Amino acid sequence: MLRIRLDLSYDGTAFAGWARQPALRTVQGLLEDNLGLVLRTGAAPHVTVAGRTDAGVHARGQVAHVDVDEAAWAALSGRPGRTAGAALVARLGGLLPRDVVLHRAEPAPPGFDARFSALRRRYAYRIADDPARRDPLRRSHVLWHPRQLDVASMQDATRELVGHHDFAAFCKPREGATTIRTLEVFDWTRPPEGPDAGLVVATIQADAFCHHMVRALVGASVAVGERRRAGDWPGALLTAGRRDPGAGVVPAHGLTLEEVTYPDDAELEARARQTRARRVPLGGPGDS
Amino acid sequence: MLRIRLDLSYDGTAFAGWARQPALRTVQGLLEDNLGLVLRTGAAPHVTVAGRTDAGVHARGQVAHVDVDEAAWAALSGRPGRTAGAALVARLGGLLPRDVVLHRAEPAPPGFDARFSALRRRYAYRIADDPARRDPLRRSHVLWHPRQLDVASMQDATRELVGHHDFAAFCKPREGATTIRTLEVFDWTRPPEGPDAGLVVATIQADAFCHHMVRALVGASVAVGERRRAGDWPGALLTAGRRDPGAGVVPAHGLTLEEVTYPDDAELEARARQTRARRVPLGGPGDS
Repeated sequence: MLRIRLDLSYDGTAFAGWARQPALRTVQGLLEDNLGLVLRTGAAPHVTVAGRTDAGVHARGQVAHVDVDEAAWAALSGRPGRTAGAALVARLGGLLPRDVVLHRAEPAPPGFDARFSALRRRYAYRIADDPARRDPLRRSHVLWHPRQLDVASMQDATRELVGHHDFAAFCKPREGATTIRTLEVFDWTRPPEGPDAGLVVATIQADAFCHHMVRALVGASVAVGERRRAGDWPGALLTAGRRDPGAGVVPAHGLTLEEVTYPDDAELEARARQTRARRVPLGGPGDS
Repeated sequence: MLRIRLDLSYDGTAFAGWARQPALRTVQGLLEDNLGLVLRTGAAPHVTVAGRTDAGVHARGQVAHVDVDEAAWAALSGRPGRTAGAALVARLGGLLPRDVVLHRAEPAPPGFDARFSALRRRYAYRIADDPARRDPLRRSHVLWHPRQLDVASMQDATRELVGHHDFAAFCKPREGATTIRTLEVFDWTRPPEGPDAGLVVATIQADAFCHHMVRALVGASVAVGERRRAGDWPGALLTAGRRDPGAGVVPAHGLTLEEVTYPDDAELEARARQTRARRVPLGGPGDS
């Protein structure tokens, strides 16, 4: 079998999230079913993803992998000068609806696993708190917030959260799942220019996220930005270590998985060798 | 009566264009009906617009005006410290669907007419000719083109078009409407960064446009960019002065009205005085 790395984007609006669920429209289901058609595998192949996004969450830099039969892969090209990967991108492009785009499909380096080799996931949460900045063309992925936010206070309040902590206060409990994560970046800005000019934007990066973590962190920040809570409240939640009914989860549609980072090829292979020896996964799932 | 300038944006996807039409969902119809509700005018007030966009065309910097009763305007505020304009924005924000946003509503300077005082309209047409650049989150306003475009040739081919010409070759005939326009800017670029990084983007600015003109100019350029036509073909079409069946109109959804420019207040008033004296409109409609 040959492992193929898939780079894709989707608009989460009309999906019940990444993960396949019976009778629901999911990104995984759609991708696996169409890969099965193109690769003629009979049963749909299994696709493993870096960030298992929730219903309504978008992805621009999502990464996944699928293992395919080498003969089926070799047969894909169809014409000279076109790689099998380019052929797969073109053929899936003709089958997938316009809210999912496969950008690239290429054989993965040795030891690559879209989920377990990922070093970090980076999300963005976008808020328009000024009616003048509500762009109807971007309404699917920007939260329209009715009250003005104090971005400086929000940024101050994130200080206590960055680092290696137990994020149980910001995680939806899930049996057997760890809530200990390394939050590497949590920044709030109001960019003066660029595509997000005038919006309130969070950049949130961690080795991995527990379930609902990104949206619970954003929810706690928004409470500070609205002055409903003091600046030390998110840090106090973290220390208390349990979910607070006053800490809401913000709507999914403001959230986009922007990027997943992997080690370089040599490092990947070394890590894969260690993993096989230790049988311990190197990272957790990336849940939004 | 008091003239109010309205600044608005809309996603044209689900509209049969700006202009009110019986039984169709139009921006004008929706805006007038909701203004009538908020201003309690009985019959919906008439709204005059700078750029009467076609079905499917978007607008980010659209400008319009409406004449309202001064007492109705004064009554809008509702609470101290809030202007009537801010109140109108907030109240329409609660009524309008999310694909239309009123950003600003303020009394217009003397002599202002959203349509006839406009000095120029600027449109953008966005094309993703590279599957890697297809962003599903922006699919409503970027054309996905299946073949790669030669941007340098497209830019060269626009040279003969810029200036004061009879654009009959690029206009859908309309009785009594002039086809003589001043095309001020027609640029094709592939921005290396920013919101449109990697896309093929046209910036098209004129005093006004005849019907279908922007999309016919873009269509002629795309034929050059695909090498279906030589670089001197758009200029030859212009000189021939009649529509060519080989010159297609590109799809509406790649087109966005970005900005409308008006003279400063002193100039507006001077122009309005001249117009009243001469009874000649100063500009034409802005059709996409």
